[in-house]
Amino acid sequence: MASTSKSNPGHFFEDFSLGMPLNHATPQTLTEGDIALYRALTGGRFVQYSSAEFAKGAGYPGLPIDPLHAFHVVFGKSVPDVSLNAVANLGYADGRMSLPVMPGDTLRTVSEVIGVKENSNGKTGVVWVRTNGFNQRDEEVMSFVRWVMVNKRDASSAAPETVIPELPKAVPGAELTGFAGMDSWDATLSGSEYMFEDYAVGEKINHVDGMTVEEAEHQIATRLYQNTAKVHFDAHGQKDSRFGKRLIYGGVVISIARSLSFNGLANAGHMLAINAGSHVSPLFAGDTIYAWSEVLETAELSDKVGALRLRLVAVKDQDPGAFAYKGEDGKYAGGVLLDFDYWTAIPRKR
Amino acid sequence: MASTSKSNPGHFFEDFSLGMPLNHATPQTLTEGDIALYRALTGGRFVQYSSAEFAKGAGYPGLPIDPLHAFHVVFGKSVPDVSLNAVANLGYADGRMSLPVMPGDTLRTVSEVIGVKENSNGKTGVVWVRTNGFNQRDEEVMSFVRWVMVNKRDASSAAPETVIPELPKAVPGAELTGFAGMDSWDATLSGSEYMFEDYAVGEKINHVDGMTVEEAEHQIATRLYQNTAKVHFDAHGQKDSRFGKRLIYGGVVISIARSLSFNGLANAGHMLAINAGSHVSPLFAGDTIYAWSEVLETAELSDKVGALRLRLVAVKDQDPGAFAYKGEDGKYAGGVLLDFDYWTAIPRKR
Amino acid sequence: MASTSKSNPGHFFEDFSLGMPLNHATPQTLTEGDIALYRALTGGRFVQYSSAEFAKGAGYPGLPIDPLHAFHVVFGKSVPDVSLNAVANLGYADGRMSLPVMPGDTLRTVSEVIGVKENSNGKTGVVWVRTNGFNQRDEEVMSFVRWVMVNKRDASSAAPETVIPELPKAVPGAELTGFAGMDSWDATLSGSEYMFEDYAVGEKINHVDGMTVEEAEHQIATRLYQNTAKVHFDAHGQKDSRFGKRLIYGGVVISIARSLSFNGLANAGHMLAINAGSHVSPLFAGDTIYAWSEVLETAELSDKVGALRLRLVAVKDQDPGAFAYKGEDGKYAGGVLLDFDYWTAIPRKR
Repeated sequence: MASTSKSNPGHFFEDFSLGMPLNHATPQTLTEGDIALYRALTGGRFVQYSSAEFAKGAGYPGLPIDPLHAFHVVFGKSVPDVSLNAVANLGYADGRMSLPVMPGDTLRTVSEVIGVKENSNGKTGVVWVRTNGFNQRDEEVMSFVRWVMVNKRDASSAAPETVIPELPKAVPGAELTGFAGMDSWDATLSGSEYMFEDYAVGEKINHVDGMTVEEAEHQIATRLYQNTAKVHFDAHGQKDSRFGKRLIYGGVVISIARSLSFNGLANAGHMLAINAGSHVSPLFAGDTIYAWSEVLETAELSDKVGALRLRLVAVKDQDPGAFAYKGEDGKYAGGVLLDFDYWTAIPRKR
Repeated sequence: MASTSKSNPGHFFEDFSLGMPLNHATPQTLTEGDIALYRALTGGRFVQYSSAEFAKGAGYPGLPIDPLHAFHVVFGKSVPDVSLNAVANLGYADGRMSLPVMPGDTLRTVSEVIGVKENSNGKTGVVWVRTNGFNQRDEEVMSFVRWVMVNKRDASSAAPETVIPELPKAVPGAELTGFAGMDSWDATLSGSEYMFEDYAVGEKINHVDGMTVEEAEHQIATRLYQNTAKVHFDAHGQKDSRFGKRLIYGGVVISIARSLSFNGLANAGHMLAINAGSHVSPLFAGDTIYAWSEVLETAELSDKVGALRLRLVAVKDQDPGAFAYKGEDGKYAGGVLLDFDYWTAIPRKR
Repeated sequence: MASTSKSNPGHFFEDFSLGMPLNHATPQTLTEGDIALYRALTGGRFVQYSSAEFAKGAGYPGLPIDPLHAFHVVFGKSVPDVSLNAVANLGYADGRMSLPVMPGDTLRTVSEVIGVKENSNGKTGVVWVRTNGFNQRDEEVMSFVRWVMVNKRDASSAAPETVIPELPKAVPGAELTGFAGMDSWDATLSGSEYMFEDYAVGEKINHVDGMTVEEAEHQIATRLYQNTAKVHFDAHGQKDSRFGKRLIYGGVVISIARSLSFNGLANAGHMLAINAGSHVSPLFAGDTIYAWSEVLETAELSDKVGALRLRLVAVKDQDPGAFAYKGEDGKYAGGVLLDFDYWTAIPRKR
């Protein structure tokens, strides 16, 4: 009997149509085991994800899953259907982490195609999807938009009508939800005295420390999220690729840069929204990540809680105190890995 | 005072006698932490080991330990007594995963010598053992036979009477136990529409994806199972060995090949029996594993559940779509790592 | 707006004064996930940390956190305040593991400066701190003294009055607490028949096995403990350092040497006290650790429980059966990594 093809071929550009729903496979139960691994892989120290006692005092139901960790899990599920044949991840927008994810929760992911645009070369197109993560009670825990460049199966197939979704430049501060009350907040235990009022728009923060990433580390992390994109795991297959080696999942860069940002933003651990994100250049094993942040906007969420909109910039093998970003030509400076725009909760002075 | 020798010297060929019981040390409690690590190290996505909700719906008591994970743990306990002085692991037979292992269960291992045969060179012999794993309620969770080539302590010692156990070529389909009811099975969430009836004897399936293994990964996995065979961990000691470097535990190859087989066999995640297994050639860090499967036999277990007997072949640094296996001379083709024959449960069409 | 400096600069020698309290940040909840990772990273097999059933039978409340694991966590919390600007970790003394740490416990760390002494070069000084770990019920789970050499911020600042604390050469055996009753102890399951009475002062034990450490492994372990010392993670920054590469956290060496000591000391898994410890030479990724032990002292703790005071010596890339230690000149032999003096509980013959 001949061989069969029961493996997942993924979707090509022609397969995506506006409004098309994608119900992604392998819902995943997250546990204390995932929390320990996420900490060990990223170096996370934000206190509400480190101490169950502190978390409970601050209004969380217990020691929660870091929302960025949950994001990688929800995202990972969408890879086999959305980006298996992707040429590039182009961006994120309108990400909202609306409910805490707790150990024992099972996350599943659904997406909907909200935009398509064939590229002028006729060989690729851009697909926009809104992806939603739900827990086992069918409560939405997060929602985000991403867009990817995908190969066409057949260059001669007709182009669809172009639809480009309107996306907010940032989630409005007034729409942020999912934060804890933060009634109790011990700044000694959290690791920093700097609260909401201590940060000013325009301020840049050097996170100082560096973290080198090994092949084993990014592979273990990416499998933890059940993200199966081949480029992260297959050294043999990557030999003939553009870079000649494995690419590190961009989410690994985001998580490590966020963990580094503890040094300067220790109270700002709770990510509430992802406004935008670009993986400016690839990271490879052996490279060292550094990070700096800029305060873009602030919002008051309650008497006790504020939010900072931050630009998190990760750079490679260079002093983050140089605050490398874009040149006068608008192009990113060499060594910039990540340009990530997000909202995070932070306690107010009391 | 002189130094003493309280370390475990392991058993040499002369130490094994027919019927000899071996009660292995360090029973091990498996938890959600082990599940997270196993997933992160192998890339496992089979849905009943990923989602507690799905597992419960399919008739499991909760999110179970992957039986192959439990196998590595039960096997690992036997290494200090059975194979510390082994030259080679020669084979497996009659492996039966009869009861699910759940987080919180404590596994202990006992073995019995069921065969001995001195080799004609007088320096080594083959030992067959049946190994059983029990949980904390003294229920047998699995049983398997393996045979190893072991060094003699003294080449001049007399050969024992040769006893070669009769072993089944495969566990009969009618004797398979330990499967779940699978009354509920959502093929969207499981990742594949292909059920029992979609697979035909003789069919070959290309699992497409590749996974490169790093030293840190196989060491972490092998320690997770408390398998202490020196060849996996001691780079200094291995410098003067035949291969000059650390060997990767064969169980790491089985688990990664099984995880890769998700792509084509997504509903066939529940291993029920190990019929045979050969580690055809060694894997080293930096090598990339690919896999393909062949359907050898099928069995109907209930109205809702079928079983596939599969040959899982792992290959190194080559396209699994070439289905490399044995040449006309009966010898394995270059690059074949593993030839593994097992039964796995899969839902029937409903 | 200019950049700000909200990152933690750590303390310099001038910042430490006698009696100064240090309340360290980021209390950490330890779970079954941490236990699985610790086992997978160190190769731990001591039975009371492997089997919940065995542990309960031996008088533990359940499967406990290995006290050495808890030590790394308590220690890690002190790094940002005590040793961020340290030139060297000089020693440990009077460490007492007085209460078991169980999964679900949250550990926090406080320290007090108990000694200061400026070095004659005027550029550095030695600081002694007593560090205490507490659980969420504010019970002390451990206490230890360590001293570090720290840079001065300004060489011209005045030297403080020298105060060198009096420290015991070893915790007296009669003061050991925190051990379990060990009423039940199955020597088959624990992996060794050798009990308290089988060990004699002066006896040296070769632990035989070797373990090679990879960059990914020590980084994952050190992040698990939330130890943030830069030298362990930042390959780029370390390029211009004295060694030109990342240094492995000394606690990784202690834990792996302890795990290797299972082979010869399988019943002696419960560390009760740390008497002294020197990191004699640095370990780098790719090096292989071996270990040997010497019995220094014994103590009877109860009818069922004894204690061994052991010197644990870790060596690098050499046969531990050579028992390399100090030469006649009192200097450590080449390849010695660690000289660690501790008490451990062990069941008595019954």
